[in-house]
Amino acid sequence: MKAGNSKGKNIRWHSTHVERREREQLLKQRGCTIWFTGLPASGKSTTAFTLEHELIRKGYLAYVLDGDNVRHGLNRNLGFSMEDREENIRRIGEVAKLFADAGVIVLTSFISPYRKDRDLARTLHNDAGLPFLEVFVDTPVEVCETRDPKGLYRKARQGEIKGFTGVDDPYEPPLAPEMAIRTLDCSPEQCAEHILRYLATHGLIKPHLKVVPVMQ
Amino acid sequence: MKAGNSKGKNIRWHSTHVERREREQLLKQRGCTIWFTGLPASGKSTTAFTLEHELIRKGYLAYVLDGDNVRHGLNRNLGFSMEDREENIRRIGEVAKLFADAGVIVLTSFISPYRKDRDLARTLHNDAGLPFLEVFVDTPVEVCETRDPKGLYRKARQGEIKGFTGVDDPYEPPLAPEMAIRTLDCSPEQCAEHILRYLATHGLIKPHLKVVPVMQ
Repeated sequence: MKAGNSKGKNIRWHSTHVERREREQLLKQRGCTIWFTGLPASGKSTTAFTLEHELIRKGYLAYVLDGDNVRHGLNRNLGFSMEDREENIRRIGEVAKLFADAGVIVLTSFISPYRKDRDLARTLHNDAGLPFLEVFVDTPVEVCETRDPKGLYRKARQGEIKGFTGVDDPYEPPLAPEMAIRTLDCSPEQCAEHILRYLATHGLIKPHLKVVPVMQ
Repeated sequence: MKAGNSKGKNIRWHSTHVERREREQLLKQRGCTIWFTGLPASGKSTTAFTLEHELIRKGYLAYVLDGDNVRHGLNRNLGFSMEDREENIRRIGEVAKLFADAGVIVLTSFISPYRKDRDLARTLHNDAGLPFLEVFVDTPVEVCETRDPKGLYRKARQGEIKGFTGVDDPYEPPLAPEMAIRTLDCSPEQCAEHILRYLATHGLIKPHLKVVPVMQ
C-alpha cells in the first residue's frame, strides 16, 4: 500500500476493501446472519425484533431484514410465483451476506419454507467464511392458525389466498438448524435470551468494557 | 410495549424494528449513502476505498458496495441490457438504503451513468429521511482512457466491447451533486479528506471521545 500525500493528515490511499476483521474489531462482534424460518404467525418477527432491541441495548449492531423493508423495496418487483419466491429468498440471502460482511449481526425474518432456498443462503455464507445460524421457530400450525394476527390463515382456508404456507403450500422444517425455539414453551424474551447465549458462547459477540455487571 | 418475563434478565419483548436513531447513537454517526459516480477508471473505487479505510480508522462504520461484492452476488442474474442496467442500479439503491437505515455509512462505487437511475436512488433515500450524497468523480475521459487499468477502453475502441460508457454509450454528469472531486487536481487522500470534512460539517459523523487530538 502506497503512503499517502495529504499534508500531514496521515491518510493513506487504498485500492481494496477494508478487511472484515477490522470492522469486527471496531464493533466487538462478528458479522453473521441469524436466519429465522417458520410458519406464518409462528413468532419469527417478534423474536427477531426482541433480539434486535436487546443486542442494540447491549451495544451491538443488529438489523432486521423482513417483509417491511425488503418486500416493499428491493423485492418490490417480485410476485408470488414459484420463480419469484425463489428469487426473493436468493436476494435476501445475498443482502444478508453483504450485511454480515460489513460486520453487522443481521436477522432475517421470512417464512422461507423451502430447504433448498435456505441451503443456498447458507452456502453463500459458508463460501465467504461467514457464520450462518438457522433458527427454526417451531410453532405447531394449529397454534399459528389460532393466533393469525392478519387473518391470513382464515383467508387461505376460505380460498381467498392461494399457495399459503401451512394451508395449501408445504413448509419444510430445517433438518439440522443451529437453534430451534419453541414459542409454546418460551416467551419471546426467553427465546432472545437463548440466542444471545448462543452468540456469546460461540464468540460472535464479545464483552463490551462499558457494560458493568451489577450485583443482583 | 409489554414488560418482559425473563426471570430478572430485564429483556423486554418488541413487535417493531429498532428506531434508526438508536443505532446512530450507538455508532456516533448518521446512516447515509455516499454515491460515487463517474466514468470507468475515473477513480471512484480508489476514493471510496481510501475513505472507507479512513472512516474505520477513526472508529466509524463504513462499507463499500461495488462490482466485487454486488455484481457477483445479488446482481449475478443481471446482464448488460438497458433493462438490466437499470435494475442493477435500482437494486444497489435499495440495498444502500437498507445499509443507511441500519446506521452504516455506505459508499457505492458504480459508473451509474444515467441521471434518472441516480435520481431514483436519491428519491428512495429522501422518502425515508436518509441522507444521500452524490459525489461526482470528475475526471476527463481522455485521462480515464490513458489510465485504463483493465484495458477496457482499448477493447471498446476496438469494438470488442459494445455499449461502453465514455466510448459508445453516454455518461450523464450530475447537475447538482453534493460534491465533485477532481482527481486530476487532488490525490485520493485529499479527496477522502474533503468528503470527511463534509461529513463532519454536516453532522453525519460525531467526534468519538476516544480520538485524542495530537499536537503537530
